[in-house]
Amino acid sequence: MTVSHLAKVPDQDAPPLHLQSEMTLLQRFQAVRDLTVKLVAPLSDADATVQSMDDASPAKWHLAHSSWFFETFVLRDHVAGYRPFDPQFHYLFNSYYEAEGSRHARGRRGMITRPSLDAILAYRKHVDMAMTAAFDNFNHAMRDLVELGLQHEQQHQELLLTDILHLFAQNPCHPAIWPKTKRDATITREKPLEWIKGREGQHEIGHDGQGFAFDCEGPRHACLLSPHAIANRPVNNREYRQFIADGGYREPRHWLSDGWAWVQNNAVDAPLYWQKDADGRDCQFGLDGLQPLDPEAPVTHISLYEADAYASWAGARLPTEQEWEVAAQNADHSQGQFLTEAGAVRPAVADGNLLSAMFGSVWEWTGSAYRPYPGFAPAKGAVGEYNGKFMSGQFVLKGGSCATPLGHIRPSYRNFFYPHQRWQFTGLRLAKDI
Amino acid sequence: MTVSHLAKVPDQDAPPLHLQSEMTLLQRFQAVRDLTVKLVAPLSDADATVQSMDDASPAKWHLAHSSWFFETFVLRDHVAGYRPFDPQFHYLFNSYYEAEGSRHARGRRGMITRPSLDAILAYRKHVDMAMTAAFDNFNHAMRDLVELGLQHEQQHQELLLTDILHLFAQNPCHPAIWPKTKRDATITREKPLEWIKGREGQHEIGHDGQGFAFDCEGPRHACLLSPHAIANRPVNNREYRQFIADGGYREPRHWLSDGWAWVQNNAVDAPLYWQKDADGRDCQFGLDGLQPLDPEAPVTHISLYEADAYASWAGARLPTEQEWEVAAQNADHSQGQFLTEAGAVRPAVADGNLLSAMFGSVWEWTGSAYRPYPGFAPAKGAVGEYNGKFMSGQFVLKGGSCATPLGHIRPSYRNFFYPHQRWQFTGLRLAKDI
Amino acid sequence: MTVSHLAKVPDQDAPPLHLQSEMTLLQRFQAVRDLTVKLVAPLSDADATVQSMDDASPAKWHLAHSSWFFETFVLRDHVAGYRPFDPQFHYLFNSYYEAEGSRHARGRRGMITRPSLDAILAYRKHVDMAMTAAFDNFNHAMRDLVELGLQHEQQHQELLLTDILHLFAQNPCHPAIWPKTKRDATITREKPLEWIKGREGQHEIGHDGQGFAFDCEGPRHACLLSPHAIANRPVNNREYRQFIADGGYREPRHWLSDGWAWVQNNAVDAPLYWQKDADGRDCQFGLDGLQPLDPEAPVTHISLYEADAYASWAGARLPTEQEWEVAAQNADHSQGQFLTEAGAVRPAVADGNLLSAMFGSVWEWTGSAYRPYPGFAPAKGAVGEYNGKFMSGQFVLKGGSCATPLGHIRPSYRNFFYPHQRWQFTGLRLAKDI
Amino acid sequence: MTVSHLAKVPDQDAPPLHLQSEMTLLQRFQAVRDLTVKLVAPLSDADATVQSMDDASPAKWHLAHSSWFFETFVLRDHVAGYRPFDPQFHYLFNSYYEAEGSRHARGRRGMITRPSLDAILAYRKHVDMAMTAAFDNFNHAMRDLVELGLQHEQQHQELLLTDILHLFAQNPCHPAIWPKTKRDATITREKPLEWIKGREGQHEIGHDGQGFAFDCEGPRHACLLSPHAIANRPVNNREYRQFIADGGYREPRHWLSDGWAWVQNNAVDAPLYWQKDADGRDCQFGLDGLQPLDPEAPVTHISLYEADAYASWAGARLPTEQEWEVAAQNADHSQGQFLTEAGAVRPAVADGNLLSAMFGSVWEWTGSAYRPYPGFAPAKGAVGEYNGKFMSGQFVLKGGSCATPLGHIRPSYRNFFYPHQRWQFTGLRLAKDI
Repeated sequence: MTVSHLAKVPDQDAPPLHLQSEMTLLQRFQAVRDLTVKLVAPLSDADATVQSMDDASPAKWHLAHSSWFFETFVLRDHVAGYRPFDPQFHYLFNSYYEAEGSRHARGRRGMITRPSLDAILAYRKHVDMAMTAAFDNFNHAMRDLVELGLQHEQQHQELLLTDILHLFAQNPCHPAIWPKTKRDATITREKPLEWIKGREGQHEIGHDGQGFAFDCEGPRHACLLSPHAIANRPVNNREYRQFIADGGYREPRHWLSDGWAWVQNNAVDAPLYWQKDADGRDCQFGLDGLQPLDPEAPVTHISLYEADAYASWAGARLPTEQEWEVAAQNADHSQGQFLTEAGAVRPAVADGNLLSAMFGSVWEWTGSAYRPYPGFAPAKGAVGEYNGKFMSGQFVLKGGSCATPLGHIRPSYRNFFYPHQRWQFTGLRLAKDI
Repeated sequence: MTVSHLAKVPDQDAPPLHLQSEMTLLQRFQAVRDLTVKLVAPLSDADATVQSMDDASPAKWHLAHSSWFFETFVLRDHVAGYRPFDPQFHYLFNSYYEAEGSRHARGRRGMITRPSLDAILAYRKHVDMAMTAAFDNFNHAMRDLVELGLQHEQQHQELLLTDILHLFAQNPCHPAIWPKTKRDATITREKPLEWIKGREGQHEIGHDGQGFAFDCEGPRHACLLSPHAIANRPVNNREYRQFIADGGYREPRHWLSDGWAWVQNNAVDAPLYWQKDADGRDCQFGLDGLQPLDPEAPVTHISLYEADAYASWAGARLPTEQEWEVAAQNADHSQGQFLTEAGAVRPAVADGNLLSAMFGSVWEWTGSAYRPYPGFAPAKGAVGEYNGKFMSGQFVLKGGSCATPLGHIRPSYRNFFYPHQRWQFTGLRLAKDI
Repeated sequence: MTVSHLAKVPDQDAPPLHLQSEMTLLQRFQAVRDLTVKLVAPLSDADATVQSMDDASPAKWHLAHSSWFFETFVLRDHVAGYRPFDPQFHYLFNSYYEAEGSRHARGRRGMITRPSLDAILAYRKHVDMAMTAAFDNFNHAMRDLVELGLQHEQQHQELLLTDILHLFAQNPCHPAIWPKTKRDATITREKPLEWIKGREGQHEIGHDGQGFAFDCEGPRHACLLSPHAIANRPVNNREYRQFIADGGYREPRHWLSDGWAWVQNNAVDAPLYWQKDADGRDCQFGLDGLQPLDPEAPVTHISLYEADAYASWAGARLPTEQEWEVAAQNADHSQGQFLTEAGAVRPAVADGNLLSAMFGSVWEWTGSAYRPYPGFAPAKGAVGEYNGKFMSGQFVLKGGSCATPLGHIRPSYRNFFYPHQRWQFTGLRLAKDI
Repeated sequence: MTVSHLAKVPDQDAPPLHLQSEMTLLQRFQAVRDLTVKLVAPLSDADATVQSMDDASPAKWHLAHSSWFFETFVLRDHVAGYRPFDPQFHYLFNSYYEAEGSRHARGRRGMITRPSLDAILAYRKHVDMAMTAAFDNFNHAMRDLVELGLQHEQQHQELLLTDILHLFAQNPCHPAIWPKTKRDATITREKPLEWIKGREGQHEIGHDGQGFAFDCEGPRHACLLSPHAIANRPVNNREYRQFIADGGYREPRHWLSDGWAWVQNNAVDAPLYWQKDADGRDCQFGLDGLQPLDPEAPVTHISLYEADAYASWAGARLPTEQEWEVAAQNADHSQGQFLTEAGAVRPAVADGNLLSAMFGSVWEWTGSAYRPYPGFAPAKGAVGEYNGKFMSGQFVLKGGSCATPLGHIRPSYRNFFYPHQRWQFTGLRLAKDI
């Protein structure tokens, strides 16, 4: 599977982040925090400051907000004598925690040219030093907050990359943040599409309580699966191009009603970053700039509406999140491609196993609305705002993408976005009733 | 349960529409078509023409579109020699059927001052006569289309009432379309709120194929229910007023994130039609004008966001559509209040049975997103656009309201609206995990 | 000059409204009030209720508001014992007089389906009777208010017609309010375009205080005119069609910057009511329905932006209001075409005089922004809001149109609209520096 | 007069830019180009990149566009062998010249994080070197283009400062770009308001052709002035605060209709940069950060609507541009405060002369719409788009501000903005009819 949309081959000198399960919490704290900083290494102060749309945030904001999380919920609340780096940051870098009071408006994050990128990096060091110094005294509850903060930061690592990609895509000069990917033909070539019969009947999904999970991944509970089949791999660019060539974007009968309105109002006719180059060739803009479209790579940067319309055109449908998760439960999800270092993705292991192809390629839209599991209760306190309050209007995505940090994925993971959003590495896998 | 929000006590001379199961299809055709006309009897040409918002349609449009449905899908397609009443009507009165070609823009329906209300009524008679004349020759498939057209028309009967209510609510003079309700104290007084334990485990829901159902109500399929309880009746105005008095609209922690943004952006602080009269008393605007708020009546005209926030404030949640439907399966759903005639609602039978209270009061928001059932496939042809294409972004409502025509309800019925919409007779019933 | 865009030939039985200078004030009051009612005779209740855009008002509103003016500023303020027809009307039918308190929102005027058209006509009779009964006792100041009210009502007569035209133009069925015009070929044929040398140097403009004028028409004052020429007649449809054929709407260099943005944002490519009929012929929608475009008629329903772009394309410019008024001062402005009766326009007298062609055809955009004359002071009291507060962002138009009531025009008259507005009978006359 | 809203006292070592009339064109080219670069010295890459609203542009864009002007209209068109610095810049840095083809959308200028500020500064050097090398061979027409380019760049110097001020004002941390002003009490103290009788009758205004002027400043022509008086100085903060205290922003009768709508829709209640500090004191945000409001400084950052409302409240009016210019014709306009260096303003000479106070303090809104002078014709070619196409909807401002470069002002100068705009250093001077 191609990684052309993101990044170069991995840096061999990188620390063994994929061995994180053997690392101490402090080691992981340092590794995750370091990775975030490495990701922004190619960015100028200006690159890190501008906000390209309301949905996206400046890189500087991600750097600061992920530190604010530790400063607020760990250092301020639990470490005696901690002195905030700058009292104004509490207002500037809160995201959406209503319980933490008023905050800078989301759509105005790009106005904050000062503090500079350097100042934010100094803020990070300040927080890291205070965290490291206090680490030995953290009790169990605090270690849970640290773990939550790390998972939170890993989410922001991915958002940081997709937000930067969106920003650079606004620039008619097509700047590349990372060098052009050196592709590995063995991995890039796709398998033919095959239908795998899914399991039926009663199965359990949701997190089993072993290791970290967000509150919305539980409780573990039974679900019923109807007879169905699921594709062995995501839809690729070649297939998606057939949908376009067949008039897919001009034929209302394939589309959800809201999706058709979205297509019409926004004159959508291709995935987000597809464009022609000066010679009229199909290209895709990525973090390595404008590159020829790889027909065998999974289609990405599509909305739920596009995913659903493609599936309808193909005589299929999207899998439910239950079908997806049950199918993935036996997969070795460490085998996917994941972000390991700045500019580096660990290539997926090509083991011929269907399920290994379920992680670390693209976030796969499911047909399931993001709603609470039976028995769901949000976590207590401000961190209870993390997931539950977003449970309307969004759809669940599964599997993780090439921009998802290694180790930050599991079968029970529930990502969620609005059906029109497509600046993440979003794609689809087909399913059908049988 | 009060019917103050809609209508007077029933007209004793009304034909026995609630005996419709014993009527022939032709008799039902005539009864349904007649009722629509009776509903608009109090309306002037102007009342029937104006569109008060994009979501609503003029009464004249409802009258015409429900006739267009029969004209297009029955008479045009299946009755040789049928001559359309006016060839321009095909363009004017299509709603959203892409397969039927271009159509007048939804938001511009209120611009059509001509044809007049009288002309539309003549159009109805033209269609009714052609239908009646051809009825004997209808084969099974055509009778199915007639049935679909009647169900469709019954939906428009309810929309017609709620759209008129919305229009009149824009008028600072508070016109009343119907006389003031004469209340029956026995029925109006509410029972105390009680929790009823719901059934658990595997149960079947969805339409069983006996009698009419929309495509989205099937296929019938098994679902799993977790331990839960469900309230014996909807939340009433008195209870909802406590939520308001407790600062419910000012406290973000009760709200879904989208809901909180909706409250802020629209300065919402009460259900849609609540207002103070000149003396400062709480009133509710209804089809009988501005009336004192009845504390024991079910709260209505609330959005999913408000329903969810109330439930959160009350330490409960909304029932899922599966929980609701399983609870309702043994209820006698003919016992609710329903629209029988223009200005008339049959009072609910006060039999002390929980389940009888599940139909015909308010449409109850569930916590379930409106998505396809396992194995769902849209109907063939243009009528396949009826339901399936709306399956994103909306929530399921169950139970029917006092504006729902008698006979147009069943446990498997899935109504759906966007979470911010509240001009229907929408309310809520609490549920909780146990 | 054609009158095809408005109306049929005059009704010979009509009272001699053009002899109004010999009428008493009471006779004029009755004649003006009657004409308003006659204008709405072809309208249904629905026609009279709907508002087609924020800039337009329902006919019913014009009928009521022009009565509100007399009721408020004459009867309420000066006639002891007057009882308002309905106390709610004060709120409903105030237009923009801040001094008269809060009022129904302008953009929501179309929501008022009740009171009905009949009720509004009864309101008019109530006001007319009270006015007539009190007339003998009116002192000089009150007679001035009556005169202002009549001039105000005449303005609303024209607005009523243009608003109705705009409403009917939204209807894809192209309803006609008046019968098709019977054209008089002698009058319809246009003269060739000729340039007339304008007067130079110091001249006086503005109202001289003889007879009625709005406050903004004075004080009379001197102005300086540079050497210039002015066209003998307005630009006609044939000429305007050449501008279009020459790519006028696609070439930014002809356009004011705001105008070019307006063209792009609204995809404008022709005057407002131009459209093709089913056979592809150029037509214009008017109060007599969709009619073939008359190439010799003055172009109308164009914005200031279009007028300015046409003049730029033609190597000319718009006249200033000073140039226009000085040119018109010796014209017999009673010779134009004007509205005399419902559906009737007095044909222009074809006397070969340049200046007679300056009134009663189209409102001619001038190049002058609508700003106060030297020494201008608004009238005292609420009626002081009539003109002065609109003196930003608008341009002056001169001359009157075929929808302007006979007698309601004079050389000093300053009409004003925003540069993008074109639902009035607006056209242009060329001028140039020499 | 205070300069607190802009800058520190001048740098004594600055080159004698105010002696520019004695400089060669090449010396002026170098001085103007250098000043632009000095103005951005305090800015970071991020400061120079972000666009705070559609009306404003990033500092980097100003730096590049003012170079693009020379590159396009001088080097590309007239200097053989010139090689553009970067071919993409032609697209990126065109402002609004339709004749120069398509261009990057105005509202998206802030997305261009690359090229960096350093790259843009290199672009400037490239252009400067090419210009300097070719300078000796410039013929008269080319020297006129150079002069136009310098005047153009001086306009952008002022815009650069006001745009940066607007950007920094969005930052809740109140960053200061320049050190706090050291005030000179002698200059800061205001004179009492006095009325000076204006000249009447026929006078000439407009540029006389001596030295540079924009096309819109001519032709010189006669105008007529009515009896009037004009204030000896602009309105100051103390006076404006009385207007606010008297309810000026809550009383519709002071306001133009468009202005009142603007106040309501934007909840305006003070000049743009007025705010309270943490202690509740009135402050004004400026390029030296948040500073206590100086009651004697001219009120600034107000819209035409506010200027007009203040004048109305004060029983006066705005001067016309003719009145203003005639009054200023004998003033020594080199005596005002003007921008001389980055962070430096030459203090006004306090000579007791009315007219010296007419330049270099605030841009004074006049009551004149920005329309062409009699006989105006735009310059030929793309530079003809400079002024003429903006002649609708805007008002003329006169006099120049403390952010206007020294030498870039004259009595005939016509600045223009839309009536709602107020991010420039805009104020007002009263006039009245006598």
